[in-house]
Amino acid sequence: MHTSVIDLLLDYEVSNPAHFLFNIQAALHEGQRVLHEQLTVTPGIKMRCFSDARSGNRFFRLDAPAGALSVRYHASVELSAAPAPAHLDETPITEVPDEVLHYLMPSRYCESDSLSRVAQQLFGPLAPGIERVRAIEKWIFESITYQPGSSQSTTTAQDVFVQRVGVCRDFAHLGITLCRALNIPARLVVGYVHFQEPPQDFHALFEAWLGGRWVLFDPTQLAPVERLVRIGTGRDAKDVAFATIFGDVKMPRKDVSVDEDGEAATSA
Amino acid sequence: MHTSVIDLLLDYEVSNPAHFLFNIQAALHEGQRVLHEQLTVTPGIKMRCFSDARSGNRFFRLDAPAGALSVRYHASVELSAAPAPAHLDETPITEVPDEVLHYLMPSRYCESDSLSRVAQQLFGPLAPGIERVRAIEKWIFESITYQPGSSQSTTTAQDVFVQRVGVCRDFAHLGITLCRALNIPARLVVGYVHFQEPPQDFHALFEAWLGGRWVLFDPTQLAPVERLVRIGTGRDAKDVAFATIFGDVKMPRKDVSVDEDGEAATSA
Amino acid sequence: MHTSVIDLLLDYEVSNPAHFLFNIQAALHEGQRVLHEQLTVTPGIKMRCFSDARSGNRFFRLDAPAGALSVRYHASVELSAAPAPAHLDETPITEVPDEVLHYLMPSRYCESDSLSRVAQQLFGPLAPGIERVRAIEKWIFESITYQPGSSQSTTTAQDVFVQRVGVCRDFAHLGITLCRALNIPARLVVGYVHFQEPPQDFHALFEAWLGGRWVLFDPTQLAPVERLVRIGTGRDAKDVAFATIFGDVKMPRKDVSVDEDGEAATSA
Amino acid sequence: MHTSVIDLLLDYEVSNPAHFLFNIQAALHEGQRVLHEQLTVTPGIKMRCFSDARSGNRFFRLDAPAGALSVRYHASVELSAAPAPAHLDETPITEVPDEVLHYLMPSRYCESDSLSRVAQQLFGPLAPGIERVRAIEKWIFESITYQPGSSQSTTTAQDVFVQRVGVCRDFAHLGITLCRALNIPARLVVGYVHFQEPPQDFHALFEAWLGGRWVLFDPTQLAPVERLVRIGTGRDAKDVAFATIFGDVKMPRKDVSVDEDGEAATSA
Repeated sequence: MHTSVIDLLLDYEVSNPAHFLFNIQAALHEGQRVLHEQLTVTPGIKMRCFSDARSGNRFFRLDAPAGALSVRYHASVELSAAPAPAHLDETPITEVPDEVLHYLMPSRYCESDSLSRVAQQLFGPLAPGIERVRAIEKWIFESITYQPGSSQSTTTAQDVFVQRVGVCRDFAHLGITLCRALNIPARLVVGYVHFQEPPQDFHALFEAWLGGRWVLFDPTQLAPVERLVRIGTGRDAKDVAFATIFGDVKMPRKDVSVDEDGEAATSA
Repeated sequence: MHTSVIDLLLDYEVSNPAHFLFNIQAALHEGQRVLHEQLTVTPGIKMRCFSDARSGNRFFRLDAPAGALSVRYHASVELSAAPAPAHLDETPITEVPDEVLHYLMPSRYCESDSLSRVAQQLFGPLAPGIERVRAIEKWIFESITYQPGSSQSTTTAQDVFVQRVGVCRDFAHLGITLCRALNIPARLVVGYVHFQEPPQDFHALFEAWLGGRWVLFDPTQLAPVERLVRIGTGRDAKDVAFATIFGDVKMPRKDVSVDEDGEAATSA
Repeated sequence: MHTSVIDLLLDYEVSNPAHFLFNIQAALHEGQRVLHEQLTVTPGIKMRCFSDARSGNRFFRLDAPAGALSVRYHASVELSAAPAPAHLDETPITEVPDEVLHYLMPSRYCESDSLSRVAQQLFGPLAPGIERVRAIEKWIFESITYQPGSSQSTTTAQDVFVQRVGVCRDFAHLGITLCRALNIPARLVVGYVHFQEPPQDFHALFEAWLGGRWVLFDPTQLAPVERLVRIGTGRDAKDVAFATIFGDVKMPRKDVSVDEDGEAATSA
Repeated sequence: MHTSVIDLLLDYEVSNPAHFLFNIQAALHEGQRVLHEQLTVTPGIKMRCFSDARSGNRFFRLDAPAGALSVRYHASVELSAAPAPAHLDETPITEVPDEVLHYLMPSRYCESDSLSRVAQQLFGPLAPGIERVRAIEKWIFESITYQPGSSQSTTTAQDVFVQRVGVCRDFAHLGITLCRALNIPARLVVGYVHFQEPPQDFHALFEAWLGGRWVLFDPTQLAPVERLVRIGTGRDAKDVAFATIFGDVKMPRKDVSVDEDGEAATSA
């Protein structure tokens, strides 16, 4: 069992009154328990919180007047996720639960239809099961260069497969896409985790449906998946933006700090 | 109040055992009531039905052996949708309900982020409200050529805006995209409706969130929206495919027939 | 030395007066000699012929009235191309001739900039020289499925690399792209060749600059490159269309027949 | 008659020996005469110059060792271009000269095939002639936002048409594309011109074939076209890069200064 202490600071400059939707709080999710948390918005603006019953993602919304806006999230989260077993079977499609089925479909950033032949070429001959998804995770780690700033908000798994460069969400999108192309349900997860190498930031990983459960994979190998404090789960990155902003706004500062059992990592 | 009688026939040739997910039944939706319906699969295969609580979309799944597969859906549906009022306000973002918010985001086929400047150029100067969405509906009808076979499964709203040609789902995607770019929540609707001009087929339209409710628009002007028997509602076409097939399958025949109060239209 | 006898028939239905630019005649090119040729246009319309001094590509233009248009090209061409030597060096960029340099640049269908990392991953470790281009040719043959109708006029090398399916011009575009990404000048060649497997059609291949000369490669392995009657040479497919048509025209019939030293192949 | 004095300074940091191809000198072109020019490369490296007979574009190549590389071009150019007449006819395709024909084809950045319907919608009803191209120039100026940094090396005319934002080369690509879509041959021109508003940089415009001659248009309206010192002419931007570099190189400094008859503009 681990405890992670998160400290997030987001500073905005708001040109005209704007509406914000945030998704930065630890999710309601098995294997993690929020010991205490504090959300501070400056100036003091009324927030409206809600959560999504299916995903456990938690949101809050607010109307910001022109001027400075500062959002701070401080939380202490207990993690009790066990590592995945060494072997887990893939699930025949007919046994994939109804509510998991749509994680087999192509999505905005994951063109699993276009990559189906190449996924078969590369991973089709391997024995099915968690070992095959581990092979995908390893192939991405070895084939794609991790390079901050190399991709954009419109970059998709197909682009990453061609250009062989990206950031954590691109790695995760490619993992999701290759899994779906092999008929393994897969989805995106974002959260907080202590990076062994700075700078600290939000992190993105992927989950695959194996042996009747979701299993986390991190093709960037930046951090152990058991240490992840989950913020959001979705089909791909467009479901789990940490902030969606309606208005003309700048973000001069974003500091993410994750302290694991006393070991701190800060982005600033 | 109207009654529509639907007769759908889908014939498949299955090369190897395949899994099917269908979304062809009249949805659980306000304003429509299924008087009776009959679903026949030949050969007699066990079906598993489920519905999505949020959207009211109804699905069934089955495992088909190699050989011929035939699916027939016959239903009689009573429609009691009232026409939309002549005036409805747009909703300020801060008042958009939590569960409606995600219909403002770009999606696979609806790049509302990329089209935001042009949406502002074309429709920004108009007075907000249902009249503005009617202006979008009219602009699409006048600017885009309706041409069966002109688009593909990967065609997006951006492509349609550039190429000025498409089919009903392309028209709907463009309407959704322009609405979202103006901060009006919008989504895709598919269903059965009697076409004034053959060939009869599934139809796609869009809905916009106005005055605290969803209002239907049909930029193809192929049929009156009040006559639509709704099958599915989603963010865009990838949420509401009538059939998702895992396996190697051909579809030699698809017949859609819609009989409105005694007036029949058939695709065959 | 071989002799090929070509018989091409193109039938058009012209809705309104249209202008045609054709590139179907055997090119002015080293290693091939036109023994005799005959170009017949029905109805009898004035043609204007010209050739491009650099490429040796030959064109003719004509104004067609509404109605049927038929173009027949019959030619007998002597080929004396020697096979490429077993070894040829790649050329250091500084020694690439001025007029060859632009065959290193990305073009419409050949995004060699986007594929540079993956080209290095796959072929960078191999020893430079003709053997490396043979490895590219072999990799394409083994990795891409040849499937008529699988690509469109807008399909690029990047699409083919992702989707792993295409026709001869897609195979050639991918070869060109991988070569350019490795700083080997490369270009598209189209022509007539007897296919070992029908249906007979125009063929597309690529050439790479090795050892101070252009060397032909055919990643489809549909025909021996020494038997090619060259029609056109260009940066990619947009430089060597067999017909460019300004107007509203249909082509109900295209027959290509290539008879090599008495062995005939016909598309019809 | 005007005289422009150009001063260009390009500073590079070369990590490993690299090959450079430059296209920065005033072209061999009617209407401009180089009074004197000086090309200085530091350190003193052997340059090889050549020019393209068709376009008049002038190039030089060099091999740079690791370390600093500095290129300076100083030139004084006399311009005697007369303004275009108030009226010029479009040319029927059949009368377009053979060597001009390929300026009607789609190219890497100019998808005139995709935009053909919309070009007809917007400009088809206008009377043909130079006035129609002036209408295109004006429409682009009014519809597209000029914003440095808004586009990338892969941005095409279609992207600009959708996103409504770009820089000078994007404006020019869109002009070329709309012209070609209307069967008016068009091409890209880059050169030096004194900007009325800084920062000074290379400039991109387009030319259309009207009344049997090429006529310059500048949809950015940043400078009078008669004052342009032409560097290069091509199908689109990939034909006229000011520098093509084979190797790992940074450019910490690029200063462009254009002094027109005593009035100076500098980018630094």
